[in-house]
Amino acid sequence: MLFGEHAVLHGKRALVCAVTSRLTVRLGPRTDRRVCIESALGRHETSLDAPEPSIPFRFVMAALAHGLAGLPGGFDLAIDSEFSPTVGLGSSAAVTVATLAALDAHAGRTTDREALVRAAREVIRRVQGAGSGADAAASVFGGIVAYRADPMAIRRIAQAPPLTLVYSGAKTPTPEVIRRVESARAAMPAVFNAIYEAMNRVAEEATAAIEQANWTRTGALMNVAQGLMDAIGVNDAALSSIVHALRADPAVLGAKISGSGLGDCVVALGRPVRPDPALLEIPVCISPDGVVVERDA
Amino acid sequence: MLFGEHAVLHGKRALVCAVTSRLTVRLGPRTDRRVCIESALGRHETSLDAPEPSIPFRFVMAALAHGLAGLPGGFDLAIDSEFSPTVGLGSSAAVTVATLAALDAHAGRTTDREALVRAAREVIRRVQGAGSGADAAASVFGGIVAYRADPMAIRRIAQAPPLTLVYSGAKTPTPEVIRRVESARAAMPAVFNAIYEAMNRVAEEATAAIEQANWTRTGALMNVAQGLMDAIGVNDAALSSIVHALRADPAVLGAKISGSGLGDCVVALGRPVRPDPALLEIPVCISPDGVVVERDA
Repeated sequence: MLFGEHAVLHGKRALVCAVTSRLTVRLGPRTDRRVCIESALGRHETSLDAPEPSIPFRFVMAALAHGLAGLPGGFDLAIDSEFSPTVGLGSSAAVTVATLAALDAHAGRTTDREALVRAAREVIRRVQGAGSGADAAASVFGGIVAYRADPMAIRRIAQAPPLTLVYSGAKTPTPEVIRRVESARAAMPAVFNAIYEAMNRVAEEATAAIEQANWTRTGALMNVAQGLMDAIGVNDAALSSIVHALRADPAVLGAKISGSGLGDCVVALGRPVRPDPALLEIPVCISPDGVVVERDA
Repeated sequence: MLFGEHAVLHGKRALVCAVTSRLTVRLGPRTDRRVCIESALGRHETSLDAPEPSIPFRFVMAALAHGLAGLPGGFDLAIDSEFSPTVGLGSSAAVTVATLAALDAHAGRTTDREALVRAAREVIRRVQGAGSGADAAASVFGGIVAYRADPMAIRRIAQAPPLTLVYSGAKTPTPEVIRRVESARAAMPAVFNAIYEAMNRVAEEATAAIEQANWTRTGALMNVAQGLMDAIGVNDAALSSIVHALRADPAVLGAKISGSGLGDCVVALGRPVRPDPALLEIPVCISPDGVVVERDA
């Protein structure tokens, strides 16, 4: 997530991008009505007619419940992920989108991209209670996506600036961070609404800046966005020191928390000329591709 | 300054407090028309009829130019300050207010407190180009003051919570910080206006929280305000690490930059139970007294 975290849950604009780590879901039709899911996380075998839940495959099973209609029969599903196991980076959205697309293909349905975002968002919300759908939009469309949930608006931006991603060494689960922010917001709604309004404005101006490839301005807007993340209470000492270490590099144009905060990652615009070996960098590039459905010949 | 720095220059609400460091101006009438000013900074001697400027006494000389009318004759002015020489803490406002009050007394004029704030603000603006008048309001009224510049609104709050003040080790002159913030604002006025609106809201809610002696809420609002200061670009790595170090103490309810930023001080609500010896603490208490005019018997 580049801009608009948390505010996007309240109808504000966000900017999100797809990274080159890819997640592949391979669906092989079966002649019976069994469903066998397999990944590095383990194996889950159940039936199409009475599907049993599975914690490691909760997004896959929720996607199956959503896309059940019209399936001709059972299948084997092999999930292969290049995503870092410690860092989220929207892997839940990626596996949800990929599973839904594979199920659509299995059922012989044509996949409309906006409908796929809506379906993935519904699945994610069912699993974790909240979800803007922004990660799903990035997974579906690829590249940089300007996103608003309601009324849904998706605009893809054909730019791929160099990013630096640094892991803070710890992560609070997103639903837990959302709970804390919502509780703070409930105590001072007018203050949070004003901050979300500022975040919305920042995301709008960042959309224009990225479209114009104005990276100095995009970086300055990332710095503003970081302050707004701090204001809603999702910054911490570790994230803050990474942000300041990255900004001290002359080739870094801006740096902020990426994602819901209270741990996880910092994203910076630009590649440091003097990389700090103490920073746990995760190599990422913006991927121009979103979901791709391939059929075996 | 507790809340609303920078935003207060744009008509938004701020909260400011007077601290126990006092500055004393002693005016002794002379029978000639000479003016002799003396303090730890040096001595400046000039005449009432053709006053010459002085860099160290620029606020005093500007106050003299403002309060010249009706003076019966020359005077000796002795300035004695308990303010730390490295940390500003509104000493310019204090010396301006004290000088204007002393000149009023010398001219036999009655000092109206709101008029004194207006006069001091005018003098400060003439010297440094910009100035909200919030520091002057605190110097005049004492205690905690909720302040808005235009239309001027001053409300004194009868509370004196314990504060901790930590010097960051460096300071960018306030007019220079204001120039940088104004230049960033000129590049993205809508974003800054939205942030100033959020600051205004925070200052309003902090006024209510302080009036109710709700210190947990006041501290939480200080943390929000710190994020908004970060968003407008006046936070830095040193200030940020002081803020996080203070917040880590269980008795500290909130911490933020105090003043224009890019150095200077961090203010925290509460007294640390585990004070960090690495922090350069400046002992302060909120002073219930503002300007006091005493006449020799």
